[in-house]
Amino acid sequence: MGHMGEFELLARMRERLPPAGPRLRLGSGDDAAISVPGGATATSVDALVDGVHFRREWASPAQIGAKALAVALSDLAAMGAGAGEAYVAVGVPEDFGEDDCLELLEGMAGVAEETGTALAGGDLSRAPVLTLAVTVVGHAPDAADLVTRAGAQPGDVLVVTGELGGAAAGLLFLEQLRQRASHSGASDFDHTGGGSKSDALIARQLEPRPRLAEGALLAKAGATAMIDISDGLGGDARHLAEASGVGLRIEAAALPVAPGVDEVAKAAGDDPFALAASGGEDYELLAAIPAGRLAETAAQIEAQGETRLTRVGEVVAGGAVEIRLPGGALLETRGFDQLD
Amino acid sequence: MGHMGEFELLARMRERLPPAGPRLRLGSGDDAAISVPGGATATSVDALVDGVHFRREWASPAQIGAKALAVALSDLAAMGAGAGEAYVAVGVPEDFGEDDCLELLEGMAGVAEETGTALAGGDLSRAPVLTLAVTVVGHAPDAADLVTRAGAQPGDVLVVTGELGGAAAGLLFLEQLRQRASHSGASDFDHTGGGSKSDALIARQLEPRPRLAEGALLAKAGATAMIDISDGLGGDARHLAEASGVGLRIEAAALPVAPGVDEVAKAAGDDPFALAASGGEDYELLAAIPAGRLAETAAQIEAQGETRLTRVGEVVAGGAVEIRLPGGALLETRGFDQLD
Repeated sequence: MGHMGEFELLARMRERLPPAGPRLRLGSGDDAAISVPGGATATSVDALVDGVHFRREWASPAQIGAKALAVALSDLAAMGAGAGEAYVAVGVPEDFGEDDCLELLEGMAGVAEETGTALAGGDLSRAPVLTLAVTVVGHAPDAADLVTRAGAQPGDVLVVTGELGGAAAGLLFLEQLRQRASHSGASDFDHTGGGSKSDALIARQLEPRPRLAEGALLAKAGATAMIDISDGLGGDARHLAEASGVGLRIEAAALPVAPGVDEVAKAAGDDPFALAASGGEDYELLAAIPAGRLAETAAQIEAQGETRLTRVGEVVAGGAVEIRLPGGALLETRGFDQLD
Repeated sequence: MGHMGEFELLARMRERLPPAGPRLRLGSGDDAAISVPGGATATSVDALVDGVHFRREWASPAQIGAKALAVALSDLAAMGAGAGEAYVAVGVPEDFGEDDCLELLEGMAGVAEETGTALAGGDLSRAPVLTLAVTVVGHAPDAADLVTRAGAQPGDVLVVTGELGGAAAGLLFLEQLRQRASHSGASDFDHTGGGSKSDALIARQLEPRPRLAEGALLAKAGATAMIDISDGLGGDARHLAEASGVGLRIEAAALPVAPGVDEVAKAAGDDPFALAASGGEDYELLAAIPAGRLAETAAQIEAQGETRLTRVGEVVAGGAVEIRLPGGALLETRGFDQLD
């Protein structure tokens, strides 16, 4: 913990936090935070470990802090919950200094501010590698307003927000750069030099943002089931199908493939559709909604100006998840190289 | 994660969990757990890291899981909150197998059952060393029913639950046994051979339990400020004094020193009072209560049959925390060797 010690560092970190709001009555600094939810809560925990979910050589402390909170909030987006409070445990290794801790908090506070999340509690301890566990609490007026993975009905249409494959392509890109750097003996890893398209893909990998507004809108539109795409569309579609007791039929050609994924996939010898269907960490939402609500909901999401909604398939009876290629063959989704 | 993989292991762990109750509408397995608090919540997060907060050579997976939850719940006890839900992130190293994970969960589930806590969500990932982050949510009808560290008034009496110094003495004992084992070249560390008194001290270190019933009773009795003793009485008293803007006068001779602490302290060349006043991890409660409520509250806690309440001092004006030895000299509390 360096010279400052846990208590002093926590105090300095607290100084940078916004004050408690009307729901959060008492924030960080006591034995526990006090909140008055006034409705239903959705709560989820996610851990990020250096070398497993991120690499410090690729991401700045601010990016790591921001990603840890964003990834946790993505689960709330997938419930259609409004962001509420976050509780953060950080394990700090010897070579991660006080300034790094404060920068990590700045990154996290940035996402907190963007999303209206209160950083309400924390725990700081030593650890062999940088480790973050973020618990987030989201809110809804009533438990029935929250959308689980179970509830998709045959006949519903299947939609995704945003674009897919970008984060996986960004990771492939980072891996290639690292290999090149290690072959050339360069000691510093250089992000730049790939152009703006690769920068955008790398940003998809290093700086994901939760689709909270879209999740809330889909919930309001009557989404019957929803999940965030963290493990890849294929895998997460299976989770949704299993929980709902339904089958899913997805058209690969309909997938909104992120710009630049084509080139990266081809250079790596991969099919762009496969990357979009299997690559994880995009943190987009996959939802089933009644067919009659599709047009209106898509228009509402477009009107928000952040992203679009794409129909990618439909909910069917049975339990199989099929992703069909344009020729009619089934795409086999598999675990892409993913930091997890 | 071994052969089983994260999802299957999580599913097997979930099988062992009790079903969701009336407040917890949806437990582990979806994007987030759904709960309907119906009042105020107290939320706290605590992380435990192998080699920092515990040692796998000393504690079984069940003891580690139980301690992680108990330590987190101790913060809720210090608010006077009723136990509610726990969300657990576990980082699992290569040499911690599936059976170890399940045993860790068993230990945690044991404390959950003892305390009425629902294990409502989890995250499992790889990590270089065993790492647990536990977020707990406790409940009270109203925010005003929860007791913070701020609010102690000059004239209040200062009380502690249970006995002090036991966990620190247990740790000294474990350290001595380890040194002996390493000198004799024994490869296996042997807990036994110290007799039942040392076993009890070791249990205080390895198997703490949160004082939830006592905390709730103290809150109901009108405690004006409360904190759990995790860093040692001296340090935690300073936290309480600072938050309340008061001074505290504590009589060392009044401290309820745990049986066996005398011998261990003397053998280690330490003052038993110093160990009781400075040693951490007892997870007892320190509270300020109006003087008029002392007798009745102490009787109520005694009637619960678990432990007793001891008056150790009083709240005074100013900001100083003084612990007086029988002769009148001030005891200087210091950081004892502590796993933190």
